Amino acid sequence: MTMTNITLAHGNGGQENNELITKIFYKAFKNDILAKSEDAAVIENGNLAFSTDSFTVSPIEFPGSNIGKLSICGTCNDLAMMGASPKYLTCSVIIEEGFDVKTLKRLVSSMEEELKINGAVVVSGDTKVVPKGSVDKIFINTTGIGEIKQKGISSNNIQEDDVILVSNSIGKHGATIFAAREGIDFSTNLKSDCASLWPVVEKLIDENIQIRALRDATRGGVSAVLNEWAKQSDICIEIEEEKIPVCDEVNGVCELLGFEALSLANEGTFVMAVSKEQVSKALEILKSMQTSKEAVVIGEVTSKHKGKVVLNTAWGTQRFIDLPTGELLPRIC
Amino acid sequence: MTMTNITLAHGNGGQENNELITKIFYKAFKNDILAKSEDAAVIENGNLAFSTDSFTVSPIEFPGSNIGKLSICGTCNDLAMMGASPKYLTCSVIIEEGFDVKTLKRLVSSMEEELKINGAVVVSGDTKVVPKGSVDKIFINTTGIGEIKQKGISSNNIQEDDVILVSNSIGKHGATIFAAREGIDFSTNLKSDCASLWPVVEKLIDENIQIRALRDATRGGVSAVLNEWAKQSDICIEIEEEKIPVCDEVNGVCELLGFEALSLANEGTFVMAVSKEQVSKALEILKSMQTSKEAVVIGEVTSKHKGKVVLNTAWGTQRFIDLPTGELLPRIC
Repeated sequence: MTMTNITLAHGNGGQENNELITKIFYKAFKNDILAKSEDAAVIENGNLAFSTDSFTVSPIEFPGSNIGKLSICGTCNDLAMMGASPKYLTCSVIIEEGFDVKTLKRLVSSMEEELKINGAVVVSGDTKVVPKGSVDKIFINTTGIGEIKQKGISSNNIQEDDVILVSNSIGKHGATIFAAREGIDFSTNLKSDCASLWPVVEKLIDENIQIRALRDATRGGVSAVLNEWAKQSDICIEIEEEKIPVCDEVNGVCELLGFEALSLANEGTFVMAVSKEQVSKALEILKSMQTSKEAVVIGEVTSKHKGKVVLNTAWGTQRFIDLPTGELLPRIC
Repeated sequence: MTMTNITLAHGNGGQENNELITKIFYKAFKNDILAKSEDAAVIENGNLAFSTDSFTVSPIEFPGSNIGKLSICGTCNDLAMMGASPKYLTCSVIIEEGFDVKTLKRLVSSMEEELKINGAVVVSGDTKVVPKGSVDKIFINTTGIGEIKQKGISSNNIQEDDVILVSNSIGKHGATIFAAREGIDFSTNLKSDCASLWPVVEKLIDENIQIRALRDATRGGVSAVLNEWAKQSDICIEIEEEKIPVCDEVNGVCELLGFEALSLANEGTFVMAVSKEQVSKALEILKSMQTSKEAVVIGEVTSKHKGKVVLNTAWGTQRFIDLPTGELLPRIC
């Protein structure tokens, strides 16, 4: 497919997004670190993780979180997913002329709170103000450096017989943003899962769980993570539909959207691969913590269809889960 | 002054910008590293520098550069200004739906070229696409880590009798953006000074120049740098109007705008403080390199009016140069 203009699908965290990144950015910036396609780059002899994210979510405040909290969770989580303790962050904001200072203070105060949870500090920043119409309200970039506490976590070396877990019921962030944007009041119970994951990961590491692969299922959801893992590790991931935790509100949004919960974004939910031997200990630790108390095994690694994700449905049939395509929800994070 | 809404002046690199940063961001993110207010944070026992910048310049292509090249120069220069060799960068782009892919490739190719000049690599990235009207064309954030090659460069310890140099004739970036935006064709000679400064700084360090303070004079121009230095080091900086290098085209734009060249943005021009003993050697090195061949001494450090910048005019009078205030040019970088 020839690209002539950038479409919303190019930012979906799925197939078109991968195409844009590979054909334009990876091609120009080619290097061994980038080629690994991890959540964060591993630098300085494997001691530091380094990751960036720009946040453009709309609305900027929504049930369970706001763009400020999200901007700290998002980048700290990317570091945590590489087994790194978040340490130093930069924060760069682009604000629309006329933006309300009280709202800004509220966002910054959420950032401050979330930094404490991660034990990280903002050490450098940048503030741009642009005329009305040049940006919609506020965009925040955070970039972080973390100290790697467990080496070897990688989406490139998941092994046959490994077990796949999710840490939380899935799709809540995507469903919340959709509901907030459309003014739908599903229920007071639906809110974004936005949360900092380092405390959970730290606990796993402290308890000697050898994490094979770890990724927060943001844009493109669990489908995108599993598809990338299946390809990068050249394995087949088989998941059981009946085991996938989805709450009623998220199921409701999925029916409305015609989406699958597996493709909806999460902001405080991770997918983990661990060995069969360690899975029950890992589950016990996850269930003991608030952020991951709904953790559950959803599948395992086989060699049936290498590079593919297979869903065993509740009806006893099987189908492939592909990398999400199309527009999904723009400005989800 | 109570802030109720963010104005364009809050992004001017001058007084209102400082107020926004201090009252909202520094207050919430308070820590020793941030308090130093340097171009880049110094972390990991003084071995690494860490800095971020978001680029929102309009137009995105202009004489002498484009937003892609600028995004690499800007962050690499912030690292270089702390005596650091740029090493790892992240790159995060926010693209408007419908953006032309050919233009994107041109911008990315400029980035690639500039990365080579700095000896740096992009190791992590993020790509967001937002609907039409949510962003004007493209914004790019780059965040970089550099390895500090000369320690102790700081805007906090400039000393009496130090000499102040600029590396280039001033105001060319600001004047170019203004002319491009207004469709004014001053001359084919006016183009942005946008350039990577690490090669020049590396040469100064290799030749054992002990740099006291170094800063690229971006938003707010040379005025902003000198005012911040005068305050941070509690010194008086006296500069000689006749010695300040300004080309005819920039003078022309200044007359039109009612601006001073001293407040116009630069993107490849630095201000340096060095000891009297080393100034002639430093000048010789600077003049030997293309990027800084117009380098010249513009003043010195005295104790006359501590915390202030004094301009000795061509008419033999004296006046204070203040931190720029007001809107200046929005989206200059």
